[in-house]
Amino acid sequence: MVNQGGSSQTSTGLRVCAVDPGLTRCGIAVVDIAANRKARLVDVVVVGSPSTDPIGDRLAIIDATMDDWLAKYQPDHLAVERMFAQHNTPTIMGTAQASGVAIAAAARKNIPAALLTPSEVKAAVTGSGSADKKQITAMVTRILGLATPPKPADAADAIAIAIAHAWRGGLFGRGLDTGKLTSPAKASKFSSRQGQGHLTAAQQLWLAAERRAK
Amino acid sequence: MVNQGGSSQTSTGLRVCAVDPGLTRCGIAVVDIAANRKARLVDVVVVGSPSTDPIGDRLAIIDATMDDWLAKYQPDHLAVERMFAQHNTPTIMGTAQASGVAIAAAARKNIPAALLTPSEVKAAVTGSGSADKKQITAMVTRILGLATPPKPADAADAIAIAIAHAWRGGLFGRGLDTGKLTSPAKASKFSSRQGQGHLTAAQQLWLAAERRAK
Repeated sequence: MVNQGGSSQTSTGLRVCAVDPGLTRCGIAVVDIAANRKARLVDVVVVGSPSTDPIGDRLAIIDATMDDWLAKYQPDHLAVERMFAQHNTPTIMGTAQASGVAIAAAARKNIPAALLTPSEVKAAVTGSGSADKKQITAMVTRILGLATPPKPADAADAIAIAIAHAWRGGLFGRGLDTGKLTSPAKASKFSSRQGQGHLTAAQQLWLAAERRAK
Repeated sequence: MVNQGGSSQTSTGLRVCAVDPGLTRCGIAVVDIAANRKARLVDVVVVGSPSTDPIGDRLAIIDATMDDWLAKYQPDHLAVERMFAQHNTPTIMGTAQASGVAIAAAARKNIPAALLTPSEVKAAVTGSGSADKKQITAMVTRILGLATPPKPADAADAIAIAIAHAWRGGLFGRGLDTGKLTSPAKASKFSSRQGQGHLTAAQQLWLAAERRAK
């Protein structure tokens, strides 16, 4: 077992490995987030394969990279984008398969997984659940204190997922998947910071996404 | 590497591990299919977990079982149900994640994966792409020469996937996933048995499924 719980790399913070799943482009980022919410990029990569490759080979790349990175960086949590069948793009099934492989790779190392909707991620880093790719990249660059946007370009989404997870509760041992969707009702029970019964913008977006998924 | 290609267990046949993916109920079957199409059940199991369990734990069960069974039974091929987002049940994303984990487990052992649509499987074992569960169970029981239906009840689907893959071309080194959907056009190029340009009932159903998925 490589992960001893708590925070392996930052004394009071959290090391998050986040995955923006996909077969053609799978973003994998490792970010340290301190207790004061300050974020530092540890590493980021985009792996993938052409759609003409056998599905086994395509998933194997993600499986092997995750195995390697989780061993190397020993994150406290994995954070992955939660998908809904309603997204219904031609690639949604492959994206779900890729996310399953990433989550299973983490589970083999006892690293718990958090699932976040795209709207939650956008809301957490930009304040708007409908932010576009450019806004996310701009905010991620600013949050990390980088002089230029992170490379490769697709990496920003994975980084945003890591930051959103930590900011949203991961730093305080919350926000991990417990099988059911972490509903706003459940989240507000734990989030005394935000006052009981109050929904943040992110939680409202989550609720909407959850409703759409039903 | 445990699989040396060709047929490890049956001198002229094929050993197929088939997965009917799911998080709550995941059917895993190992079937030997001889060159004369005769099928013999090697082993079958249904694993799963309640929806209240964390997603990592749920996928880990499938990951660990696949690792174990693939090492123990050393199948030539993996066969998995191909899903379309159009199936759009609340559980479709979890089902896709489970299938990804199964395919990646096989890829780690260099076992190639074949993907079959439910209609293809039904058509292969019952002659009708719209057969119901009862018909599939009855035909699987007959094909395997069993006195009673295979247990557990959900196991019949996984067994049917294994038989369908072998009968459909797996025995002759065909029907393996090559990234793109094995379209009827591509299949007919290889299937001289069925005559060039002719579509079997299964291929017609496949074509319809493929069209729906676009």
